[in-house]
Amino acid sequence: MRVRVAVNGYGTIGKRVADAVVKQPDLELVGVAKTSPDFEARRALDLGYPLFVAETASRSDFSAAGLAVAGTVTEMIGRADVVVDATPDKVGAANRALYDAAGVRAVFQGGEKASVADVSFNALGNYAAARGQRRVRVVSCNTTGISRAVAVVLPRWGVERWDVTLVRRAADPAESKKGPINGIVPSLHIPSHHGPDVQTIFPELPISTVALVVPTTLMHVHVNRVRLRNAPASVDEFVAALRATPRFRVFAPWERADGTPQVMEFARSRGLGHDDVPENVVWEEGVRLDGRDMHFFQAIHQESVTVPENIDAIRAMFDLAPDAATSIRMTDRALGLVRG
Amino acid sequence: MRVRVAVNGYGTIGKRVADAVVKQPDLELVGVAKTSPDFEARRALDLGYPLFVAETASRSDFSAAGLAVAGTVTEMIGRADVVVDATPDKVGAANRALYDAAGVRAVFQGGEKASVADVSFNALGNYAAARGQRRVRVVSCNTTGISRAVAVVLPRWGVERWDVTLVRRAADPAESKKGPINGIVPSLHIPSHHGPDVQTIFPELPISTVALVVPTTLMHVHVNRVRLRNAPASVDEFVAALRATPRFRVFAPWERADGTPQVMEFARSRGLGHDDVPENVVWEEGVRLDGRDMHFFQAIHQESVTVPENIDAIRAMFDLAPDAATSIRMTDRALGLVRG
Amino acid sequence: MRVRVAVNGYGTIGKRVADAVVKQPDLELVGVAKTSPDFEARRALDLGYPLFVAETASRSDFSAAGLAVAGTVTEMIGRADVVVDATPDKVGAANRALYDAAGVRAVFQGGEKASVADVSFNALGNYAAARGQRRVRVVSCNTTGISRAVAVVLPRWGVERWDVTLVRRAADPAESKKGPINGIVPSLHIPSHHGPDVQTIFPELPISTVALVVPTTLMHVHVNRVRLRNAPASVDEFVAALRATPRFRVFAPWERADGTPQVMEFARSRGLGHDDVPENVVWEEGVRLDGRDMHFFQAIHQESVTVPENIDAIRAMFDLAPDAATSIRMTDRALGLVRG
Amino acid sequence: MRVRVAVNGYGTIGKRVADAVVKQPDLELVGVAKTSPDFEARRALDLGYPLFVAETASRSDFSAAGLAVAGTVTEMIGRADVVVDATPDKVGAANRALYDAAGVRAVFQGGEKASVADVSFNALGNYAAARGQRRVRVVSCNTTGISRAVAVVLPRWGVERWDVTLVRRAADPAESKKGPINGIVPSLHIPSHHGPDVQTIFPELPISTVALVVPTTLMHVHVNRVRLRNAPASVDEFVAALRATPRFRVFAPWERADGTPQVMEFARSRGLGHDDVPENVVWEEGVRLDGRDMHFFQAIHQESVTVPENIDAIRAMFDLAPDAATSIRMTDRALGLVRG
Repeated sequence: MRVRVAVNGYGTIGKRVADAVVKQPDLELVGVAKTSPDFEARRALDLGYPLFVAETASRSDFSAAGLAVAGTVTEMIGRADVVVDATPDKVGAANRALYDAAGVRAVFQGGEKASVADVSFNALGNYAAARGQRRVRVVSCNTTGISRAVAVVLPRWGVERWDVTLVRRAADPAESKKGPINGIVPSLHIPSHHGPDVQTIFPELPISTVALVVPTTLMHVHVNRVRLRNAPASVDEFVAALRATPRFRVFAPWERADGTPQVMEFARSRGLGHDDVPENVVWEEGVRLDGRDMHFFQAIHQESVTVPENIDAIRAMFDLAPDAATSIRMTDRALGLVRG
Repeated sequence: MRVRVAVNGYGTIGKRVADAVVKQPDLELVGVAKTSPDFEARRALDLGYPLFVAETASRSDFSAAGLAVAGTVTEMIGRADVVVDATPDKVGAANRALYDAAGVRAVFQGGEKASVADVSFNALGNYAAARGQRRVRVVSCNTTGISRAVAVVLPRWGVERWDVTLVRRAADPAESKKGPINGIVPSLHIPSHHGPDVQTIFPELPISTVALVVPTTLMHVHVNRVRLRNAPASVDEFVAALRATPRFRVFAPWERADGTPQVMEFARSRGLGHDDVPENVVWEEGVRLDGRDMHFFQAIHQESVTVPENIDAIRAMFDLAPDAATSIRMTDRALGLVRG
Repeated sequence: MRVRVAVNGYGTIGKRVADAVVKQPDLELVGVAKTSPDFEARRALDLGYPLFVAETASRSDFSAAGLAVAGTVTEMIGRADVVVDATPDKVGAANRALYDAAGVRAVFQGGEKASVADVSFNALGNYAAARGQRRVRVVSCNTTGISRAVAVVLPRWGVERWDVTLVRRAADPAESKKGPINGIVPSLHIPSHHGPDVQTIFPELPISTVALVVPTTLMHVHVNRVRLRNAPASVDEFVAALRATPRFRVFAPWERADGTPQVMEFARSRGLGHDDVPENVVWEEGVRLDGRDMHFFQAIHQESVTVPENIDAIRAMFDLAPDAATSIRMTDRALGLVRG
Repeated sequence: MRVRVAVNGYGTIGKRVADAVVKQPDLELVGVAKTSPDFEARRALDLGYPLFVAETASRSDFSAAGLAVAGTVTEMIGRADVVVDATPDKVGAANRALYDAAGVRAVFQGGEKASVADVSFNALGNYAAARGQRRVRVVSCNTTGISRAVAVVLPRWGVERWDVTLVRRAADPAESKKGPINGIVPSLHIPSHHGPDVQTIFPELPISTVALVVPTTLMHVHVNRVRLRNAPASVDEFVAALRATPRFRVFAPWERADGTPQVMEFARSRGLGHDDVPENVVWEEGVRLDGRDMHFFQAIHQESVTVPENIDAIRAMFDLAPDAATSIRMTDRALGLVRG
C-alpha cells in the first residue's frame, strides 16, 4: 500500500514535489492545495491532481475560472498519511497545529525554523535521523547543497575548517517584483544563517558562511574553501568522489558550461521538467587543491534542489527503504536523474 | 516515404528543429551538424541523432570528448532531401552554394537576407507561396510574430495602418557575453528592419516598426497599434478570433500571467521542452478598441516561435499537406500545442 | 525679498529640489524634512540645510546619529511661504490639510492625483495657468517629458494624433528591492495613465499612451509617433526646433550616445550633480519623417526631469517672472543647463 | 615648477585622471589623447584640456564634429614629463616603446602585465618603491582595494592567511555590449590573477583569491577572510584603524547603505564628480571577529579607485613629497576626499 501524500502550497516547491510524488512507485498524491486560481491551478487539474483550496479562499473565484475544487485543505489532510508543507516561509509553522490536530505527519521546508520539526533532514547527510519521525524539515536549497558536499568530503578526508561564500540569486524567475536590478547587497550579519543551518545536519562541523545577493534569477553559486584533515592524492580523487555520488553533476571542460546561464541551458535541453537541476553542479576546472586546502565552486538550483530530498524524507519517515542509498536511488531513477 | 531532413547548426534554433522533426509522422531526421563539442552534442547523441561535423571541425576534439561522429556536413547533406540551415546569421548565405551543389533543398532562417531564398515564409501568412519551392526562408522570430497577427486581422477587418513598437530582449538566456546589463538601447534607424521584412510576407501591408533593446533574455514584447478598415464589434470579437487561430495563446485575467516572467513560468510548467512557447502570447486585458483603432500587446518567445514554421515550410516545399491548415494542425499536434 | 521654500520629503526629488532652490537668486531654502536618519540627512546638514523631522519621527534616532534637528515639519512650514511636497506617492494628498491649515502654499508632485491641486503644471506647456495659484501639481516625469515635446510640436505643426509607447525603468538606482530582474511587464490597462495626465496640460490633445516596464534603473525611453496637421519641411526643421527650445538635449551622431547607458555617462561627465539630465534627450538619428507622420525617440531621466519645473512652478505661483521664457531661463542658468 | 602630465587614452580612467591632475598644485595637464570624436572629447575641450589625437586617427572626423585638435599623441608626449597611459588593456604595453623613444616617464594601468613597468604600485602599500622610477604600474582596481586593506592589517596584527572572494561587476555603466544579463560566471581558474597581483605589492603575503562575475555595473564586492597572527581586541579596534586610514569610507548602521546601490547613491549625492568613490567602502555591521579570524566585506568602485593612486605614483616618481602620507594627503585634499 502506498503512502498517501498531500501537498499544501502549490508554488515553486509544491508543484515540483507533486510532480515528483506521482512518479514514485511507493507514494500516491492525494492532492494539492492553493489559495487562489491561476495558470498553475489549471495545470494541476490538467495533470489530474485533485485541487483543494485554503479554508479562507474564495471558492467562487475558482469556479469562475472553471477550475473544479475537490475540497478544503482540511479535507485534503484528512485523506493523507503525510503533508508536504510548501507554503511561504513562516506559514508552515502556523500550519503545524492543523497537521497535529489531524494526526497527520508533516514535512516542512527550510524557510521554517529548525524547531518546527523533530529533525532537520538531508538525504546524503542524515537519512537515518528521520526514520520513523512524525515531523521532518528538509533544509533550504543552500543548506542542502552544502550538506551534500560535506557528506562527500567529511567521511573521506575530514574537515578542519569549511568556509563558504554564498553568491545568492535575488529572486526566482517568476518573481517579477523583487530586486535589485543593478547592484550587490551583502548580508551584513556574519555568519549568515546557512552555517548554523548546516550544523542541524552536521552538528560538529566547523563551518562559517558569508552571503551576498546579486541580480540574477537562475542559480546560487557557492565558493567553498575547505581545510581538510587529510588531503586527497589529487584533484582527480576529489572529482571522482563527486562523480560517484548521487546528486552531483560535474561538468568537464569540453562541455563548455561556462556559468549558470549555460548550466540552465543544459537543464532546458535535458528536459527533466521546469528546467530542473536537482543536483549540485560542480565544474571540474574550478577545483583547486593546495596541500590540505581545497577550493571549489558549486552552483545550486534553488527551485529544484530540495525536491528529491522531500521524497527521501517521506521514505525515511515511513521506513519505506532499508537505507539512504536505496531511497536515493529509487527517487533519482523515478525523477530521471539516473538510468537503469 | 518520409522526407529526409538534415539540420545544419545545432544551436538555439537547430536543436529545437531537430526535436520537432523527429516528432513528425512524415519527416525523418538524417542528422545534425556542429562545429565543436559541448553538452549539446552529448545530448544529440543521447537522443539518437546522428552527429555530423563541419569540414573544418577538429575530429579529435569530438573523439577526446567521447562523442561519436557520423561524418561531415557534406556527407549529411548527401543523405538528405532538405537541409534546415540553422547556422549563425550570414553563414546560411555562405552555405547556399554547398546545398545547391548537392542538389538538396534548403530552409534558411530569418537572420539571412530575403534574397537567400526563392520565397520568405510564414505558415499562417503565405503557406501556398512555398509550395514546391527549393529554397525557402522562414522569417525571423519578430517577423513571424507580427505576420501571424496580420494573418488574423487583415482578412477579417482590413488594415489601414499598422504600427509596432518592438521591445526586444537583448540576448538569449544562454548568451552570457551580450549586454546591456542596465539600460535601453534604441534602434535609431526608423523603420526598423522588421517592417520591410513583414512585407516579404504581406507585400501591400502599410506597416511601420520601431525597435529598442532592453536587458532581458526571456521574450520580446510588441506593442501593436492598428487602424482597421472596419472595426470588430468588440474586443471580444478580436479575442475570439485569436483564440480560434492556431499558434496564439491568449491569457485570461484569472491566469495571472502579469508579464514575461510569468509567461515563461507557464511554459516551464507546461513542459513542451526547452521552456518553449511557440505561440504568440496575447493578454486579454491588454487589448483595447477605440472605434477603428485597436491596441494590443503580444509577447514572442524568440527561441521557439519559428520552430513550427520550419516544419510547415518543409511540408509546403514537398507538398505533404493539402493546405496550410492541415499542415499547421499536423505540426501542432506533434509538438503538443494542441490535442486530439 | 526672496520667497521662502520648505521641502517636505528629502528623497530622490526632494534633495534635488532643495539643491535647485539654493541656487536660485529669488528663492531661499527654509529647510528640508525627513522621517529617519541616513547618509542623506548627514549630507543635508553638511550643505547647511536646516533639518526638520516629521512629528512622528524618533528624535533620539537623529541625535544618536549626531544629526542636529531644527524642529518639526509643522515648525518648518510655519517659516515658509511655500512647501514643495516631495513625500512618497499619495502622502502628499494626506499632507494637504496640514498645508492649508498653516496657510502656506504648496507644490505637489505627479505621484498625486490631479485633484490634489488647483492646476497641473508644465513650464513649457502651461506656465501662465499656475500664476497666482496656491496649490500646483508638477506632473510626473513621463508626463513632463511628453508635455515638453507637445509644447514644441503643437504650435508649429499641429497634431492630428499622438501615440507614445513608454518603455519605463522599473526602479530608481537606489531602490534595491524592486524588480523585475529579468523580464518585461506590460501595463495591461490601455491607455496608460500618462495620456490623460498629459491632457491636464493640453486638454484637447488627441493622445494615446501605452506603457511597459523593463529591468533598468537609468531612464525611461519614449517612442513617439505623431501624425501632424502640417508637416515640417524636413527632419532638420524639427531638430532645429528642439535645439532652439530649452530643456531639450539633442545628440548628434558623432557624439556616439548609443543608448541610455551612454546618456548617463554624458551626465556623469557633465557634472550637474546626481548624474542629472533634466532635459528631454533626443537622438538626431532617431527621428523619421514620412509625409505628416513623424517618429522620434526621447529618453527621460526620471529622477531629475521635473526638478526645474518645481522651481518654475514656484515662480509662477508668486509671479516672480514676467513670463515662462524668463522663468525657464533663470532656472536653467542657475542649474547650469545653459550659460550666459 | 610643476610636473607636466599627458594622459593617453581618455576613457573611464583617463578622464578621471585628467580631472584629478588639474586639481593638484604640483601637476600640470599637457593634454589628453583620443582616437575618435564623441561627447567625451567635447567635454575635454569644454574643460580646457588640449585635445590630441592618435597618429592613426582621422583628423577630419574631429573637424567635422567641430572639435579643435592640438596635435598628435607624439606631439603631446614631447611636451610632457610623464605620460599616464590609460589606453585599453594590452595597448599600454605596445605604447611603451613610444614613451621610451621620447624619453618620457610613464604610468601604466593594472590591465597591463607587471613586466610593463619597473615597479607595481599602491600608495598605502609601497609608495617608496616607486620613488625616482621611470615606469610605474598602478595595480588594478581590485588589487588596489585589497592592497589598501592589507596595508592596514599587516603591520598591526600580522597575517597568517588571507582569502578573498571577489564578486565582480560584469561591465562598467557605459559598456552596453557586455553581459551577462542574467547569470553568474565563475572564474574557474583558481587562484584568480588578483592574488599574485597583490603579491607584486606585498611579495610575502599568503593570499588566495577566487573570483566570479555577476550582472551589475556599479561596484565589485570583496568577501575577506583573514586569519591574523594576533587578534585585535575587538571589532571596534579594527574599524577604528580603518577610519583612521585615508581612502577608507566606513558606513555606520544608521547611514543605511544597505548595498552597492545605496553606496552609489551616497556617491551621487556627495558629488566628487562621475559618482566617484575612490575609497574602499566597508560596512561596520559587516565585520566579524572570531578569535584570530576576521571577516569583512568591502566594496570597490572600479572606475575611480585607482585615480588617486595614479597621482601619488607621479609624485613618487618625481619625488614631489617627502613620504606616502604627505602625498596621499595632498591628493585627497585636492580631490575633496578630505577637508582642511
